[in-house]
Amino acid sequence: MPKKYDVLVIGGGPAGYVAAIRAAQLGFTVACCESNPYADPKGKPRLGGTCLNVGCIPSKALLHTSRLFEEARDGFAAQGIAINKPKIDVPTMIARKNAVVARLTQGIALLFKKNGVALLEGRGYFVGPCENGWRVKVGEETVEAARVIVATGSRARHLPDIPVDNRIVCDNVGALDIATVPKKLLVVGAGVIGLEMGSIWRRLGSELTILEALPDFLPQADADIVREAARAFSRQGFDIRLGVTLNKVEVTKKGVAVHCTDKSGAALEFAADRMIVSVGRVPNTEGLNAEGVGLALDAQGRVETDAHCRTNLPGVWAIGDVVSGPMLAHKAMEEACMVAEVMAGQSGSRRFDAIPWVLYTSPEIAWVGKTEQQLKADGVAYKTGKAPFMANGRALGASETAGFVKMLVDAQTDRILGVHIVGANASELISEAVVAIEFSAASEDIARICHAHPTLSEVLHEAALACDGRAIHF
Amino acid sequence: MPKKYDVLVIGGGPAGYVAAIRAAQLGFTVACCESNPYADPKGKPRLGGTCLNVGCIPSKALLHTSRLFEEARDGFAAQGIAINKPKIDVPTMIARKNAVVARLTQGIALLFKKNGVALLEGRGYFVGPCENGWRVKVGEETVEAARVIVATGSRARHLPDIPVDNRIVCDNVGALDIATVPKKLLVVGAGVIGLEMGSIWRRLGSELTILEALPDFLPQADADIVREAARAFSRQGFDIRLGVTLNKVEVTKKGVAVHCTDKSGAALEFAADRMIVSVGRVPNTEGLNAEGVGLALDAQGRVETDAHCRTNLPGVWAIGDVVSGPMLAHKAMEEACMVAEVMAGQSGSRRFDAIPWVLYTSPEIAWVGKTEQQLKADGVAYKTGKAPFMANGRALGASETAGFVKMLVDAQTDRILGVHIVGANASELISEAVVAIEFSAASEDIARICHAHPTLSEVLHEAALACDGRAIHF
Repeated sequence: MPKKYDVLVIGGGPAGYVAAIRAAQLGFTVACCESNPYADPKGKPRLGGTCLNVGCIPSKALLHTSRLFEEARDGFAAQGIAINKPKIDVPTMIARKNAVVARLTQGIALLFKKNGVALLEGRGYFVGPCENGWRVKVGEETVEAARVIVATGSRARHLPDIPVDNRIVCDNVGALDIATVPKKLLVVGAGVIGLEMGSIWRRLGSELTILEALPDFLPQADADIVREAARAFSRQGFDIRLGVTLNKVEVTKKGVAVHCTDKSGAALEFAADRMIVSVGRVPNTEGLNAEGVGLALDAQGRVETDAHCRTNLPGVWAIGDVVSGPMLAHKAMEEACMVAEVMAGQSGSRRFDAIPWVLYTSPEIAWVGKTEQQLKADGVAYKTGKAPFMANGRALGASETAGFVKMLVDAQTDRILGVHIVGANASELISEAVVAIEFSAASEDIARICHAHPTLSEVLHEAALACDGRAIHF
Repeated sequence: MPKKYDVLVIGGGPAGYVAAIRAAQLGFTVACCESNPYADPKGKPRLGGTCLNVGCIPSKALLHTSRLFEEARDGFAAQGIAINKPKIDVPTMIARKNAVVARLTQGIALLFKKNGVALLEGRGYFVGPCENGWRVKVGEETVEAARVIVATGSRARHLPDIPVDNRIVCDNVGALDIATVPKKLLVVGAGVIGLEMGSIWRRLGSELTILEALPDFLPQADADIVREAARAFSRQGFDIRLGVTLNKVEVTKKGVAVHCTDKSGAALEFAADRMIVSVGRVPNTEGLNAEGVGLALDAQGRVETDAHCRTNLPGVWAIGDVVSGPMLAHKAMEEACMVAEVMAGQSGSRRFDAIPWVLYTSPEIAWVGKTEQQLKADGVAYKTGKAPFMANGRALGASETAGFVKMLVDAQTDRILGVHIVGANASELISEAVVAIEFSAASEDIARICHAHPTLSEVLHEAALACDGRAIHF
């Protein structure tokens, strides 16, 4: 007799584990299956998916250490903190990062126990429908579930002819485990992951070159923000080449030699000790037997879903990176809660217009809502309020004065349409803007709300004041 | 002929300079007078008042440096950043702090020029009413103004028999300019200023004792938060003694000896190299000739005002530390804008229930709205949602896992009544809570709003989820 569950979740990343926990909270019997791409030392699968194991969490741990290292090396003397030249002990840095990851992934295993979620080891494979739902093979075992949530996530896109060995040529997995600081580092793809990974190793001393095929980087961000970020990155020694076509990559035991063409057609050559390929991610749908059971995929290979994350198959849902929308953990977690709640007869739907984006570069970048170029393209009449960190007391106190906050509001109603931040702590400052947008706030609302002094959030306040031409501090 | 202005602002601190700028933006001719307690090297008065010169801004600059120093000394090894034992170069630290202060105070002088505000040197003294308003003496000059805004601020309260020389015995002014790290530091008063000043020098190596007359410290904060903070401070080596009565302070050239009595009546003695007295602040009303013109003060010596900051005298307003309400720069700045706008025929009033409080200790403390003890005293039925930083990926990545977020909501309506944070970056996280409270948000609103991952703001999100018993991550 196969084990039976009300809900089976395929995949234990941020989408899957949150769906499993929330469904269990709502009274369902729940199992979650996880294969073991990120096995622990005993070979057991680790929960948390890409995000916890080889994504957001380990990268933030390394970004934290590398930022402190850079501050110590370049900023301590001016503050009166006398040290010798700091050295980075990469193995210790990596071990700490691994400890953070282990702690969080073990934490999710404990949350499964606490909430009564069964953890099944193995990949989930749709066998077919059964009397009351779906039969799914997990490893050697077959289980039956009334409802199935597909949360299989995504993996790094690799390029043809550039084999990733995660030693010399790395994707996000290997980029987090480089054993010594590369003298020269080449990053292919100037997206979120490429910029963050490049930042880590540049701060630690790598000479960094980033090659991007597109004529612009971060096209999804507000163009003003990207311009400011590009200036900051350039001051930091990022060598970002846009509009570059890769022709040939030669990999040796010691490094890579890359032959490419710039936008004018001229030949370029780069040599480096390590290369990181970060050219997007592809949804994980292989091994599900999607074709066998008729699970519909869209043109990009993602599982097709409606606004409630229902697939074309009855009782089968899909969430997270494997469906449409931004590949962000927080978007996945919101979908996860929504699906569990809808299954339980509650309401909810997904919308993508108040999902924050964050880049943990120096300075940080974060935004929510529409960019100026989107508003122009949509023909929306808007006003802009911009305020610099330079005029902010806390930014000065922390010697982090680069960047600005830009608020875009409807010219008629003053409703906030987008907030774009490049500057210190943008990652945390954006949450106020998300709440404001969710409440359909006007810039005047934020302008009239008291912001603690001295905080960086005052820059957002000034940007709101600036929408009406009444900024005080610049 | 005396110079005539539409508006004269007495005092150039956060209340005064903001009122002057906003009034000028609204079309008034404006002057602002400032005496020179914080003169620049040329003897010219510096704008910015206590906050910019000897308060919020310089303290945050020193808190920033001292925190980095502590992290370097105690935290770098575990992160893989190899350095020798760091030494603090106090003169360089102080010089940088002074540069930050100079930059901001000069910035306000530039804002005055940009907005056409006349800066008058000297203390403002009410001569009496004149045909169209008030005649005020500023230094040797007499000016006439249709409207006067009193924004004279506050100064440290001193204790009888404890003369402050700002060398051995310091108030907030001297505490920011101590030339070497005291071996033993005694702080009298465990309020916001005492805890922050104590934090700076403890991080740099001082042995710290804090004496507080009251049986509790930070009585205005939520008691849960204070308990957690007390544990953290105690781990850091703060020696906080509550319910202590000072009997005698002997000051020599080398330090102080303090004789006091503990709550049980037992005698205690403390010796220290330096002492900081931080036992509250008193409003500055001397020298205004308040009595001469009949400007009404309240029982605490503050200028009496209504909800629009009008005093009892026609055309005379008062704002900031010199009136009732918390002595916070951001409260003063809101009053400043409100008064200027009401003068211009716009609307507005002040209310104190959504003003955030922040302490820049380690961990930081911030709150807005009601505390649990206030709700109990008011007989309000409430629910609580609490979430720890320990379960947060970004907190772990930064090795800052102490503390929690506590949300208090109305038991019937779910409306957020208070948000209390002790933990990393509380100072910036609180802004989201202020906006939520200003929009009368329910915990469910925050629970359903997408929070970027991995950010510390997710702890606030979890606290909102916890109000309904559906936290995911702990």
